[in-house]
Amino acid sequence: MKIINHLIKLKTAATLDFIDITDKVKKILKRAGIKNGVVNVQSLHTTMAILVNEAEPLLIKDMKKFLEKVAPRTYKYMHDNFRIRTVNMCEGECANGHAHCKAMYLPTSSIINVVDNNLQLGMWQRIFAVELDRSRLRKVGVQIIGK
Amino acid sequence: MKIINHLIKLKTAATLDFIDITDKVKKILKRAGIKNGVVNVQSLHTTMAILVNEAEPLLIKDMKKFLEKVAPRTYKYMHDNFRIRTVNMCEGECANGHAHCKAMYLPTSSIINVVDNNLQLGMWQRIFAVELDRSRLRKVGVQIIGK
Amino acid sequence: MKIINHLIKLKTAATLDFIDITDKVKKILKRAGIKNGVVNVQSLHTTMAILVNEAEPLLIKDMKKFLEKVAPRTYKYMHDNFRIRTVNMCEGECANGHAHCKAMYLPTSSIINVVDNNLQLGMWQRIFAVELDRSRLRKVGVQIIGK
Repeated sequence: MKIINHLIKLKTAATLDFIDITDKVKKILKRAGIKNGVVNVQSLHTTMAILVNEAEPLLIKDMKKFLEKVAPRTYKYMHDNFRIRTVNMCEGECANGHAHCKAMYLPTSSIINVVDNNLQLGMWQRIFAVELDRSRLRKVGVQIIGK
Repeated sequence: MKIINHLIKLKTAATLDFIDITDKVKKILKRAGIKNGVVNVQSLHTTMAILVNEAEPLLIKDMKKFLEKVAPRTYKYMHDNFRIRTVNMCEGECANGHAHCKAMYLPTSSIINVVDNNLQLGMWQRIFAVELDRSRLRKVGVQIIGK
Repeated sequence: MKIINHLIKLKTAATLDFIDITDKVKKILKRAGIKNGVVNVQSLHTTMAILVNEAEPLLIKDMKKFLEKVAPRTYKYMHDNFRIRTVNMCEGECANGHAHCKAMYLPTSSIINVVDNNLQLGMWQRIFAVELDRSRLRKVGVQIIGK
């Protein structure tokens, strides 16, 4: 059995940036030389999700609208009330309660089967890293287990 | 270590058809002869989800209503605007933006522990393939890793 | 390859209790002596979820509010209509349709990469068992695969 870990580093552009990382994951899989197994693609952030869906630009606009509806930026989050909040406060803390609440409904990681040296993905399935907060440097942990 | 992949093929009946595939997965596991490990049950479609919940018919009606509320069929999705859409257009393309947006909130795959030759499922836990689009031929990739 | 299964037993306090089980999972991992692999943290209940998010008390209040909005306790669930329901009825059956519908939007399990003897978690990522029903005795199945 082989276990290969690789970090994907990204710079996201803006809130609700959908970055298609399928080709990056495929390249890591190819280098790993693992024929059959699974790959776990894991966001290392509480405000970035890993989503499998179709890479159709208009659909991505639809999904952004629905994510905004489910946890709007305009809502008053207690997490963003810096007059009363004391826990996990960092320098330059930004209001991102909406991003955490969006994240609650989305997967932190997506696990994909590996069959015959390839990701077992359907015709339209693509893997996205979805920025729920603002433009940031991000990391995705890719773990491949198999043989 | 053993790795076994099996495809489950289904014909779904209608939008929001919940198909209980627990027994099919159990049968695959039995044949695989894997005592301990995990099984990843993965939808190979962007408009079908794999959900773990209770197989109670009235609850399934409730869940259908909530899925319809979260991304209604009556909403005007840009993905369905075939006058402006150019990407991933197929022959016979149908309006299914609602199905993709429902899929965003549901798991593409469910990973279940395997302990002592059995799925480690709680008393009421069943595995469903959930059709979010219309009646279609569907595939579920079942990957078992263990020994 | 090693495969280690461990059950975490919990008593939740109330509806929407968020219990941070990160340290329990880390302890199980340490005892397992597995350096690299994955751990699947799986709820064994249809009304308890395993969520990765930040352990900030005000944020947890926000998340509770959003979970209540997405499937309110005040809605009339068919699952709770004991005059017509016949399937899966137990002694002392309680109305918990809301908990099942909340569960539909949340992960039943979270799979975390294991790298160099540690959970590969980002700075703010914590693993929560989230009670969606009332105060209950609960079990979480932790499966570690690796070497």
